[in-house]
Order: sequence, then C-alpha cells, then structure tokens
Amino acid sequence: LSGDLADRILGGDLRAAARLMRDLDDGAPAAVETLKRLYPHTGKAQVVGVTGNPGAGKSTLVSALIRLLRGRGERVGVVAVDPTSPFSGGAILGDRVRMQEHATDPGVFIRSLATRGHLGGLSRSTSDVVSVLDAMGYGKILVETVGVGQDEVEIARSAHTTVVIMVPGLGDEVQTIKAGLLEVADVFAVNKADRPGADRVVSDLEMLVHGGRVGSWSVPVVRTVAVSGEGVEALWKEIERHLAAAESGEGGEVRRRHRAEQRLLEILRDELGALVDASLRSTGRLAEMAAALADRRSDPYTLAEQAMRTLLGG
Amino acid sequence: LSGDLADRILGGDLRAAARLMRDLDDGAPAAVETLKRLYPHTGKAQVVGVTGNPGAGKSTLVSALIRLLRGRGERVGVVAVDPTSPFSGGAILGDRVRMQEHATDPGVFIRSLATRGHLGGLSRSTSDVVSVLDAMGYGKILVETVGVGQDEVEIARSAHTTVVIMVPGLGDEVQTIKAGLLEVADVFAVNKADRPGADRVVSDLEMLVHGGRVGSWSVPVVRTVAVSGEGVEALWKEIERHLAAAESGEGGEVRRRHRAEQRLLEILRDELGALVDASLRSTGRLAEMAAALADRRSDPYTLAEQAMRTLLGG
Repeated sequence: LSGDLADRILGGDLRAAARLMRDLDDGAPAAVETLKRLYPHTGKAQVVGVTGNPGAGKSTLVSALIRLLRGRGERVGVVAVDPTSPFSGGAILGDRVRMQEHATDPGVFIRSLATRGHLGGLSRSTSDVVSVLDAMGYGKILVETVGVGQDEVEIARSAHTTVVIMVPGLGDEVQTIKAGLLEVADVFAVNKADRPGADRVVSDLEMLVHGGRVGSWSVPVVRTVAVSGEGVEALWKEIERHLAAAESGEGGEVRRRHRAEQRLLEILRDELGALVDASLRSTGRLAEMAAALADRRSDPYTLAEQAMRTLLGG
Repeated sequence: LSGDLADRILGGDLRAAARLMRDLDDGAPAAVETLKRLYPHTGKAQVVGVTGNPGAGKSTLVSALIRLLRGRGERVGVVAVDPTSPFSGGAILGDRVRMQEHATDPGVFIRSLATRGHLGGLSRSTSDVVSVLDAMGYGKILVETVGVGQDEVEIARSAHTTVVIMVPGLGDEVQTIKAGLLEVADVFAVNKADRPGADRVVSDLEMLVHGGRVGSWSVPVVRTVAVSGEGVEALWKEIERHLAAAESGEGGEVRRRHRAEQRLLEILRDELGALVDASLRSTGRLAEMAAALADRRSDPYTLAEQAMRTLLGG
C-alpha cells in the first residue's frame, strides 16, 4: 500500500503527494513507511532557505525567484513555514495573492506549514516535505521561514544556502534579527532597495560581513526590489556561486554529514519525547509526579532522574 | 557545597544567585543539585508573562510595571528572554537604558537569557531562573519574551498570567502575531495607545475576544502608554483579577498540575536528547548512520528506529 502511494508520487501524482504530506502531519504510521520508500530518490534538489522578519518581503522575493527559475525551465518546490498569523485581514490576503500567481502552474508545488505536526516539530516537518519534493524531481526547493524563532533558524540552517533578507525603513526597534542568524547567512538580500535608507543597510551589512566570519566564503550583499524583479537574477547568481563553493570538495562532504546527523538526532529526539510522554501518561506516573511537584514533595530534577532510570531500565 | 550555595542564595546573596544562574547555563552538574535544594522554597511567587513583537514596547512596559510594583513595596524578579539581536546599535542602547533605571535597586533582580543553555532550551532555562527568583522571595516575577517563536509561546504559557502587547502603527505586514498566541493571551495590552490607529487595534481585539474563547474568563483589553505610565495600574489590576479567577478552585488545581507536567516532560526531553546525542557520538554510531544516509544506503526513519531499539535495549 505504501509502495503504491510512493510509486504514484514518484510518477508525479500531485494529489498523492499532498495526501502524504497531510498524513505525515497527522502522524499516520503508514506515511513514514511511504517516506522511507521515497528516500532513495532524494538528494538531487538544490535547497535554498529564505528568511527574514515579517514585512521584509519574503513571499514577494520567493515569488520573484520562482518566476526566474520557471523562466529557465526549472521545476520549483516551495515550503512556506510561517507560524505567525496576521492580526488584521490585510496581510493574509496580500500573501495569498503574491503566491497565487504560481498556484495553477504544474511546475510549482507550494506547501505551507504553520503548526507542528503530530510527529514532531516544524523543522522535522519541513525536512519531510523537502524530501517528498526532492523525490518528485523538483530541482529547486525554496524554504521560506520567518527568521525569528529558534526553530526557524534550525530550518534555515538545514538548507544548502541560506539567504537572509533585510529591509530599510522598518526602524531600529523593529529591525532586530535573531541572534545567530547573521552567522547562518550565506547571502544577504537587501530588499526594497529603492527605499530611503537602503544604502545604510547595505553598508552596515558589508561592515558586519567584513568584520565577521572566518573562512573562505565572503558573504555577498545583494540589492533587490522583489516587486519589480530587480536584482533577483543577481541574487540567484550569488546563491549558485555559494552552492558551488560550499558543497564541493571536502567541505561539502563535511556539510552533508553534518546535515544528516542533525536530521537523525531531530527524529530521535522527537520519537523519544513522544515515547516518554505516552509511557508516563499511560502508567499514571506523570500525574503522580506532577502531584508531588505541585505539593513540593519533590523537585523536577529528582523526578526526571527517577523517570529516566525507569525508562532506560537502569 | 551545593547546600552552602543554596543557603547563601536563600539568605539573599545576589552574587551567589547570579553565579548559580550562570552555572546552570554552563551545564555544571553541581548547579542542578543546588536547584533541587532551592525547590522546596518555591511556589510563592506570582509569575506574569509579557510578550509581543519587537517594537511593541515590551521593555518599557515591563519597566513601568516594575516601577508600579516597587512603589507598593514588592520585590520584583525579571527574566528577559530575547533571542533577537538588534541589527544596528540603536535598539540595544535603548533597551539597556530602559532597564538600567532598576539596575541599582536591590529589590529588583533582572536576568537576560539570549541563547539556549548547555542543559537545554530557553524554556527550561527560564523555568530554572524563575525557580531561583521564587526561592529568593521575589514575590512578583515578570517574564518578558518576544512572542514570535514556538519556544517563546511555550514560555509565555508557563506563567500564571500572560499579557500580550499589541501596538498601533506597525502596519498590517509587521503586525503579525504567532499563531496560538491569541489563545494564550489572558490580558491584552494595547500599548502606545496615544498613537493614531489605537482605537482600531482595540476594537479589532475586542471583536476577536468576543468571538473567540470559550470559558469563564473574558480576556480584557487595556490601553497603555508605557513611557508615561498611563494605564499601567489598570493593566496590573486586570492581571491580579485574572490570577484570582484562574488559579483558584478546581481550575487552578488543573492548571498547577498541567504546568508541573509540562516542566517534567521538558526536562526529560532535554535529558534524553543529550543522552542520545552523547551515546551515539561516543560509539561512532552517529557518524556511521550519517554516512549511510548521505550515500542513500538507508533512510533517516529506518536508522532512527534501529537506534531507538539499541538505546532502549529492546
């Protein structure tokens, strides 16, 4: 059965792919079996992470990149990871419209992820969806994230190349970025570069870049105006240049191993967490421990140590 | 030794407390022993989560709350969880200045958390710091988070009362909030309420509140101007009203048990994750699996299942 579904997905059945992604989110055990069958067909796609604050123009830039890549005959997969929801109706409509342009293009597959799946965190869900798209032969996969939570930084880090978008005019208070995000940036895009203050952002970033990272790759700063498509070709050129530099030779080997390790550890952490949760609940042990804790008869660390010993049979 | 340190902390030694917090972050094993000794002295503080987007005025509002509470003779602990870093120098200076006001007040203890500690995630570090402050007799503890990542939502959820700050004028695109954050809001503060657009934000929130949550607590919407202190007393009144309503009776019992369960599971997940990581690395198994994965000789789920069986001795 999972073999059937896998064959249909490999044959390009979009409905089957969408169903698998839904089943993965719902924690259907058969879904993981299907994913296992798809896995040997993965590893061919180029994965690009695009991250930045709300209002930086991520969706518009991703849309412009899709347009560029489609013009070159590439098939493009998009994973839009956005756990934020707009407070008023304005933004959601805008976002949908920006992506809608590609909704009817069979060469583009867009999947939005907003919440943790049943099987684990957003990072794991994203990796699963990327694997499905990769197996289906989407050669370019864009992973769009809001660059603010720790989860999102991990997601950005798992791509071959990470583009961090900055914009002028959001004001100092708003223009904060996740600590550690500067470190994961392989390419900076200064979007809305036709706005006042763009020169300042570019020069600030260039100073950061020159002061900062050790290593052979010097992080380029590219100006873009995503709505008009200006600078998007130059941006893609830098992404390709980074891929060639980072993923080749011995360094590329190290990066591949590291990504594989991270993915394994992530799945293991999720599985163990789910196992512990289920086992402590079903035995009533969790409720007992919580009662002891609420009454201050014990402390969380002593209780956790005891539970660990029981779980690991030690 | 850990008993000595615990006694000094319980006796009000601020240096000893700061050292323990640092040791907890560094993963010093003795630190957990000290925490165990402090735990019986916890459970007295009122913990309030304050969360909102960058630019919403969180630090200013927290500072205004500190002023109000100090005026009433309360001792106040603050945990400022901010994994974002300002892009330019402006914001960082502003933030420091806003909090600086209370830096020399012995009745106020401020601890900033920016990165995951060695022992685990930000959520666990925050709970640990809250426990230390609680044991030291800080009766009011304010936990300030940027309300955007999943981590931060979990942190906000672990307080007795969660205040979500919204502001007018950030624009629809920027004014997005974490999905699920509306659900954890116990009180809304519309800050910078003297700015144009405040009425719109208030009425939007009131509509959301009335349309939304089932249950006995109707989420109030309070206007504040944190820089002048306007509305801050009214805000605290609503926080107290929520505490009285939510933490009393049977519902309060359920909430205490739930928080205890979450804290235990969080520690267990962290400990198991660290154990798995260390065990797979030290045996060379992780590198073997990563190589098999990189060459597509196996898939991450099959490898994770095998590793789980080995780890659990099954």
